[in-house]
Amino acid sequence: MNTGPDPAPPPGDRVPRTDRGRKTLRKLLDAAAIEFGEKGFHETSITGITRRAGTALGSFYTYFESKEEIFQALVRDLSGRVRDAARQAPSPGGDSFAVERAALAAFLRFAREHKEIYRIIDEAEFVDPASFRRHYETTAGRIHERLAAGMARGDFRSDLSEAHAWAIMGMNVFLGLRYVVWSEDLAAEEIAALANGLLRQGIAAG
Amino acid sequence: MNTGPDPAPPPGDRVPRTDRGRKTLRKLLDAAAIEFGEKGFHETSITGITRRAGTALGSFYTYFESKEEIFQALVRDLSGRVRDAARQAPSPGGDSFAVERAALAAFLRFAREHKEIYRIIDEAEFVDPASFRRHYETTAGRIHERLAAGMARGDFRSDLSEAHAWAIMGMNVFLGLRYVVWSEDLAAEEIAALANGLLRQGIAAG
Repeated sequence: MNTGPDPAPPPGDRVPRTDRGRKTLRKLLDAAAIEFGEKGFHETSITGITRRAGTALGSFYTYFESKEEIFQALVRDLSGRVRDAARQAPSPGGDSFAVERAALAAFLRFAREHKEIYRIIDEAEFVDPASFRRHYETTAGRIHERLAAGMARGDFRSDLSEAHAWAIMGMNVFLGLRYVVWSEDLAAEEIAALANGLLRQGIAAG
Repeated sequence: MNTGPDPAPPPGDRVPRTDRGRKTLRKLLDAAAIEFGEKGFHETSITGITRRAGTALGSFYTYFESKEEIFQALVRDLSGRVRDAARQAPSPGGDSFAVERAALAAFLRFAREHKEIYRIIDEAEFVDPASFRRHYETTAGRIHERLAAGMARGDFRSDLSEAHAWAIMGMNVFLGLRYVVWSEDLAAEEIAALANGLLRQGIAAG
């Protein structure tokens, strides 16, 4: 029974209709990523975001009602860009392990260019828990789909489950934290190769 | 509730000299874990901690100078208790895989009893970044030591490195987030068995 008032239109309804609008929205999200990444949610201000974006304050309110709303949109945006980076990673002629390896290398390269993603996603746990959870659930869901595809191709063993997807995601996230955000000791390709070796053969002595 | 182990000494040299002092410190840390876990750092107050602990405000200042200081001590305390849980996990007659499996099951059981550990460690990234980093670096260091021991015993392949330790830690942390903190779909032993299968043989088709 829905007796409440009509809900406010979600952020998704205020979609830009023009190229110029899309560019403005992109500038706002990019500026927000830098501001939230450097200062954290609480120290970031809407005027700080528009100043960095080089847009009028009114442009902000064309797309967002509040700092909370642009933060939520930013988490969704980053989540989508990670997805696209992994999906578009070429793994020419490779098997399902090559797909997994290319996806991880692409994620690590993205994170190296956008280190703020870790702080923003991590802060979402406190600022916007639903977005935090959705980011990891959808990411694990995509890995689970790749595992299913690899089982169907006969590359992966047939008993893999959602929990394997969570294990692989955790592996990837922590390798990125250590070797991308905290240091750059290893190239993305080296890290991806190492993780792929673990998936391919485990760690048992030959 | 006062069933925990002896607390790690607080910062500085304000170490309790008596049993009664150790019990008071334990009560303060246990109360702080619940308060920080439920309310987060910013909403938690020193009087809220002492009220929950059933101690006088003066007792707090015997051991800590500030909310920041007890938070820091709490992260170290939880980190140490995770270490002890993993270290004391029995893996009778088993090989290095059994040791790894027992350590993960023990961590998951600990996290199931102390779900607040995730929120507290995660919030440390923002409240006390040095403690956050130290927690993961020391945890990865211990896994790395176990990998080295397993290589020396001939159970693990001989090319394992620090990065493998980070991969395994990430796997363990995310399995705990999904199957201990967010739901209790799987028993600790099932999750540990699944992760161990991944380490033992990878995910390739037989």
